[in-house]
Amino acid sequence: MGGKLKRIHPRVLHERLVSAEEAASWINDGMTLGLSGFTRAGDAKAVPTALVERAKKGETFKVNVYTGASLGSNIDKMFAEAGIVAKRLPFQAEPLMRKAINTGEHLFVDQHLSHTSEMLRADVIDRVDYAILEGISITEDGMLIPTTSVGNSLSFAETAENIIIELNTAQPEALVGLHDIYSPNKQGERDPIPLTKVDGRIGTLGIPLDFDKVKGIVFTHQEDSPSTIVPPDEETKMMAKHLLGFLRSEIQAGRLTESLMPLQSGIGSVANAVLHGMLDSEFENLVVYSEVLQDAVFDLIDAGKVTFASACSLTLSEEKMKQVFGEFYKYRDKLILRPQEISNQPEIIRRLGLISINTALEFDIYGNVNSTHVSGTKMMNGIGGSGDFARNARLGIFVTKSIAKDGDISSIVPFVSHVDHTEHDVDVVVTEQGYADLRGLAPRERVPLIIENCAHPMYREQLWDYYKEALERGGQTPHVLEKAFSWHASFKESGTMRKLVEQK
Amino acid sequence: MGGKLKRIHPRVLHERLVSAEEAASWINDGMTLGLSGFTRAGDAKAVPTALVERAKKGETFKVNVYTGASLGSNIDKMFAEAGIVAKRLPFQAEPLMRKAINTGEHLFVDQHLSHTSEMLRADVIDRVDYAILEGISITEDGMLIPTTSVGNSLSFAETAENIIIELNTAQPEALVGLHDIYSPNKQGERDPIPLTKVDGRIGTLGIPLDFDKVKGIVFTHQEDSPSTIVPPDEETKMMAKHLLGFLRSEIQAGRLTESLMPLQSGIGSVANAVLHGMLDSEFENLVVYSEVLQDAVFDLIDAGKVTFASACSLTLSEEKMKQVFGEFYKYRDKLILRPQEISNQPEIIRRLGLISINTALEFDIYGNVNSTHVSGTKMMNGIGGSGDFARNARLGIFVTKSIAKDGDISSIVPFVSHVDHTEHDVDVVVTEQGYADLRGLAPRERVPLIIENCAHPMYREQLWDYYKEALERGGQTPHVLEKAFSWHASFKESGTMRKLVEQK
Repeated sequence: MGGKLKRIHPRVLHERLVSAEEAASWINDGMTLGLSGFTRAGDAKAVPTALVERAKKGETFKVNVYTGASLGSNIDKMFAEAGIVAKRLPFQAEPLMRKAINTGEHLFVDQHLSHTSEMLRADVIDRVDYAILEGISITEDGMLIPTTSVGNSLSFAETAENIIIELNTAQPEALVGLHDIYSPNKQGERDPIPLTKVDGRIGTLGIPLDFDKVKGIVFTHQEDSPSTIVPPDEETKMMAKHLLGFLRSEIQAGRLTESLMPLQSGIGSVANAVLHGMLDSEFENLVVYSEVLQDAVFDLIDAGKVTFASACSLTLSEEKMKQVFGEFYKYRDKLILRPQEISNQPEIIRRLGLISINTALEFDIYGNVNSTHVSGTKMMNGIGGSGDFARNARLGIFVTKSIAKDGDISSIVPFVSHVDHTEHDVDVVVTEQGYADLRGLAPRERVPLIIENCAHPMYREQLWDYYKEALERGGQTPHVLEKAFSWHASFKESGTMRKLVEQK
Repeated sequence: MGGKLKRIHPRVLHERLVSAEEAASWINDGMTLGLSGFTRAGDAKAVPTALVERAKKGETFKVNVYTGASLGSNIDKMFAEAGIVAKRLPFQAEPLMRKAINTGEHLFVDQHLSHTSEMLRADVIDRVDYAILEGISITEDGMLIPTTSVGNSLSFAETAENIIIELNTAQPEALVGLHDIYSPNKQGERDPIPLTKVDGRIGTLGIPLDFDKVKGIVFTHQEDSPSTIVPPDEETKMMAKHLLGFLRSEIQAGRLTESLMPLQSGIGSVANAVLHGMLDSEFENLVVYSEVLQDAVFDLIDAGKVTFASACSLTLSEEKMKQVFGEFYKYRDKLILRPQEISNQPEIIRRLGLISINTALEFDIYGNVNSTHVSGTKMMNGIGGSGDFARNARLGIFVTKSIAKDGDISSIVPFVSHVDHTEHDVDVVVTEQGYADLRGLAPRERVPLIIENCAHPMYREQLWDYYKEALERGGQTPHVLEKAFSWHASFKESGTMRKLVEQK
């Protein structure tokens, strides 16, 4: 314990040491928890686990669970199994919890990732009773140094009634100095956020703590869950190729240089593949301003392609985690982690002029994007930061494979079954077939590009048939409303969207 | 002419005086025009009219027409009649042009009003060949003082190849000093926009001109078209009452004070009625940060309720125009007009924490809003600034009457036929029936509030029937996709959305 205690510089806090079980015992039915954690990184681990144990032992209670984004460490899985969640926000990505959400057992509020902290500060969602925040250490001047993510930990610490800290000794002290913590304050009482460059520092190294709120400190020793990215396949490689082709055409047109603009890429295999595609490219002196830094960003740093990366979390595979934390000295001058209200802040995204790459579930012939709902009803993960970025980026790009389920689903449909991003916010769509540059185009101009460049050939005729029938009815955005969702209905009925054509 | 010439302080520009006809003769087929004008205010009048004359005399040509927002002075009407528009953006509100758009004769790109200038600066839409900008005068230091709107005139002047100026002597010189012109520069080369208060001044009094670009100056003498607001009716009064009731409940909850937050209200009769509702209220020391200032804002200034108003245009009724410009000394210290990239800038909207009130065409049981497309296909006016505001405001409020066409249309439907604002961006919806506060609610929690508080009683059972059937299928956002648009289809087939119930 002596060695560990060195991580708590203010002596006055030494007496707050408790077990995870004791800390978990303070949490009552109906309370709201604010947990650190963003895309499997830096999540509070021990206290949530101890809380689940209480339920396993027969206690009945429910809590609201706010986080930065998705959690690792099986927390959401255990929460779902234990059935202890009343309301969950703003994002999750766990199969069992997803199921509980889609049966209506857990209420889920799907928020833009930059919005949660605003709602907390404006006091319009339930206040956080206990913020449970993972950290590396507490500094002499009373700041909690976060670990591998910042997420909403700052706004939780500022607005919560009570704070429980998990000091994770499995997280290397080398991470101290990585963070830049800036609080924008409430809306209406806010100055311009002074960040003007990806590598700018505008805040403190840690989260200022109100010691009166710190009810307990728990020591843990557990690594983050590694990411589960699958390596690029032929299709994701093709998507990367098309996207890079588009960026090259922008350079030729004189609108970009080979340093592009700061890059944001959403989590997932496709985005990772796109970044990987930059390894063997002419692009250079790239910078990243994103939510999550995945493996590919570190490969790009190693290759000298990326000179700096700012984000809100580090979410790495097991292998990459070992390598990166093993030789962190190589990266520490090239990285900053920020609160998600800064990484995802419209003000900054628009100012820096990002190139933003996110994954769609489906998009329609006019360029509206569904990022969240399978068949328009079942939640996948959540909108995440895609809206923060796409709306405000200089280039809002969405990628998806043109078909799913061996071709029984077309990802390009007449009308998306749920709209997360409207045609106003979508600049370019990319599939393994090609890309469609929608900027400055009227809806009727978008359709041929999307069908011919992005839809799978097996669905092109079917899309043209829909559009031609719609065109006869006219309008700015021609539709045959009573058939707009017939593809989804067909899939539900017969297991394929293709059936429509065969029935003709 | 001698008196008029005093409005052109730089003598070097005196030789650029031309007739509207001559200026219009420079415009060739295929060119792109950037016209001043925002919601009928400050539009270029003479040169566009002279251009139409050329078409009337038998010339065949088409031009792209970019503006701030909608035009007055019958410009869009004449353009549509003459059939000379290839592409129009980012907004319009004229019946004949609407018709040409919906037949596909004119291509229309419906943009967030803050986005057009970004696209011009990033060079991703056709460059402006001729900016045609109305002004009051040209200052000694070479700045064009705009008239009753700023719109996109600054970005047109900065990016256009050529500039034609219309100096309108019907616009009083008293307007000099009203404007605050700030150019945010390109994305990626931009500092924080330093505006932190509604009455802050961050720019110059006029638009800096590159004299080399100024090809001609035309004198005009024509007032703006007055606004066509209809006075509040029983229903708009009820909507105002409910909305004010909601704001009062926010004060009671300690989340707002009686000064509220800076107010934005979209153009139109409902928004005007809401502001009128504040005349006889306890609210005081209000400020306005909006796109358009309509009559009601001046009544609120007269009543001492509004202490300052910032916008991008003044759009007044004929009577109000006379009064306000007749005694402009009463208002000039309480008003600022800004470029729409500042009035509608996400950075500023979010910083100031606006209360944003805009009109919906329809919304659905989950809170998604259609602002633009009648029956999902036919363009009404455009999204305008509603997206800039709703996404970034502290409170994004949408208002609409619960029914239209004597009850044959329900404005609350199972699934909106076009999505402009997703449930992520809609905080409160209001009809004459009541309001639903959707903040922090999961989709399933939103439905009962929307049906019971906002839908017209004649449609409530029908909405419940849909929702109950959807619930049996489950999901985060339960839907019966094959019936989602059946209300719209029913209206198209039989002239009423109610028929569905009678057919049961």
